[in-house]
Amino acid sequence: MENAEELFRVAVIGSGNWGSVAAKLIASNTVKQSMFHDEVRMWVFEETLPNGRKLSETINQENENVKYLPGIKLGSNVVADPDLLNSVKEVNMLVFVTPHQFVEGICKRLVGNIRPDAEAISLIKGMEVKTEGPCMISKLISEMLSVNCCVLMGANIANEIAVEKFSEATIGYRQDKEAAQRWARLFSTPYFLVSAVPDVEGVELCGTLKNVVAIAAGLVDGLDMGNNTKAAIMRIGLREMKAFSKLLFSSVKDSTFFESCGVADLITTCLGGRNRRVAEAFARSGGKRSFDELETELLQGQKLQGVSTAKEVYEVLRNRGWQSLFPLFTTVHEISIGLLPPTAIVEYSEHARNLNLLQGAVQLH
Amino acid sequence: MENAEELFRVAVIGSGNWGSVAAKLIASNTVKQSMFHDEVRMWVFEETLPNGRKLSETINQENENVKYLPGIKLGSNVVADPDLLNSVKEVNMLVFVTPHQFVEGICKRLVGNIRPDAEAISLIKGMEVKTEGPCMISKLISEMLSVNCCVLMGANIANEIAVEKFSEATIGYRQDKEAAQRWARLFSTPYFLVSAVPDVEGVELCGTLKNVVAIAAGLVDGLDMGNNTKAAIMRIGLREMKAFSKLLFSSVKDSTFFESCGVADLITTCLGGRNRRVAEAFARSGGKRSFDELETELLQGQKLQGVSTAKEVYEVLRNRGWQSLFPLFTTVHEISIGLLPPTAIVEYSEHARNLNLLQGAVQLH
Repeated sequence: MENAEELFRVAVIGSGNWGSVAAKLIASNTVKQSMFHDEVRMWVFEETLPNGRKLSETINQENENVKYLPGIKLGSNVVADPDLLNSVKEVNMLVFVTPHQFVEGICKRLVGNIRPDAEAISLIKGMEVKTEGPCMISKLISEMLSVNCCVLMGANIANEIAVEKFSEATIGYRQDKEAAQRWARLFSTPYFLVSAVPDVEGVELCGTLKNVVAIAAGLVDGLDMGNNTKAAIMRIGLREMKAFSKLLFSSVKDSTFFESCGVADLITTCLGGRNRRVAEAFARSGGKRSFDELETELLQGQKLQGVSTAKEVYEVLRNRGWQSLFPLFTTVHEISIGLLPPTAIVEYSEHARNLNLLQGAVQLH
Repeated sequence: MENAEELFRVAVIGSGNWGSVAAKLIASNTVKQSMFHDEVRMWVFEETLPNGRKLSETINQENENVKYLPGIKLGSNVVADPDLLNSVKEVNMLVFVTPHQFVEGICKRLVGNIRPDAEAISLIKGMEVKTEGPCMISKLISEMLSVNCCVLMGANIANEIAVEKFSEATIGYRQDKEAAQRWARLFSTPYFLVSAVPDVEGVELCGTLKNVVAIAAGLVDGLDMGNNTKAAIMRIGLREMKAFSKLLFSSVKDSTFFESCGVADLITTCLGGRNRRVAEAFARSGGKRSFDELETELLQGQKLQGVSTAKEVYEVLRNRGWQSLFPLFTTVHEISIGLLPPTAIVEYSEHARNLNLLQGAVQLH
């Protein structure tokens, strides 16, 4: 085909649980939609499996990520590649879906090795807190690679989407609506509804901050406080997510928190996620066992994001003198480091005045 | 005391589960706050208990509603009264908390028998659909009695509040902020945080419409679709609640849906309520057993509001030609009458276009 170069070519950078599901979603669309090149490259951080075979070779032979998404066919047009630079060759749509601590190193290696017209999207949850304030992953990618970078977040439990259960997601974009619509076409399926909103920071902060609220929800579960209290804590958490995001970025929109990335992801994470689970165990121990210890015991090597995010958020709050405006975020951190008992999560009476202050502060925007 | 007449006097009209908890909350405040007369009158729809005693007498002797809230002391200043007109004598703060089908009859009897300066608040969920459109309970009370009527809604499982677990609630008021603040002082305790918003219709519609979403959530549970799908359905439901309310009343505010009456009550109701429970059983039967049959079997005389509200909402949608704008509300009704199978609740792909239309419609406001 003479215009083959004009097709959009996609690489998924990352091959964990969510990265593999993303590759599957994308691969089902690239074969159907003529604007995309069929092949989806997937960069694999190479591992040797217990049977001695390489992970990337197994993926290519069996069409399945036997380690991180066993039992699910990814599509024969997914091509695993352990060579990062080779995986992005000729690619102009870069999908970032690695643990957040690896992004900076990956971007360093990509500088000067991607197409000048490349665009990026980040599916990564988390942020880097630097002395000058928080740095969002999409901004890191965007600045290091000089590319436009959207984000995709939502109520997305990878294993449920892998078996094609109905779900939704939200794309956040800055200005380029056309690019956002292209990303939406790349990800959308009849069971995975994607909508796009012009609020990249709002969408990305939802994905990060919900893990702090999930810790609070898990504490409530561990204290056997019931669904009423849990719903109240989730609501207060959602309000603090919104207020924190708006104080950091005045462009953040209230409506974003009604999207899948907001209220729906919060619900999913507070009902079933690993942050919730470890926090429940922490509260049941009366705060006597540490989060580190419980993480090791319960998560088999998976990492807990809520506690570290709570610490990062707390640093931002302390730097700016905002602690009293965010009683839930502050309390989660102080419980996690043993300064307060788990029961403090529902002792909001003395915070009522502060909550009113918070509402006042937010109305200023 | 010479200025005893100037104190605010409260009557709770209703003595079921939630009415008894409301009386307990109120009674704990009237004894502490000098603006209120200590005594809280509670109108009891008289019943004879299995032991031959009258319910109202038992409440007054034991300080406990042994039938609807056993094990909880209401406060010695709660006085049960089976005589409706006597219970409101000298009262200027009327708290309505009866099943919604009794309100009209009660108000008819109260006309001309209440103080001219009386104010009301409704804790009742549900609405009356008349040919000219829906009639909110607060409006019914307000018009029949010529009184200002606020509403109080929220994530309020009566039995959890009865044992003083942390919770929140929302008061909706029309113009009289001072009255709303007085109601907030009457209900607020350290474990029951009340905030007031100037959006009586929005708050009241939240309390009604959430039961339709709870049916949808229960269907998802019965189909074993997982938390991801459930969160997506709850989010779509919240969006339809917001859009429906705004189309009916242009004064309704988006921010109301972030309050306890909105997202928090929705979460509580979709996690644990009876609408959810019966809908789950309905889906597990493949739609073969009727809601009526399951209600009788599972609820021991308690009534399911979601199915009748879905029918009422559907009538409004049909009268105004709005069905395609509200795929979730429409689908819940069509499933409940056997027109669609339970699995239809997650078949939204063909509705995606309509959902976009919906967003367009709402943006017009």
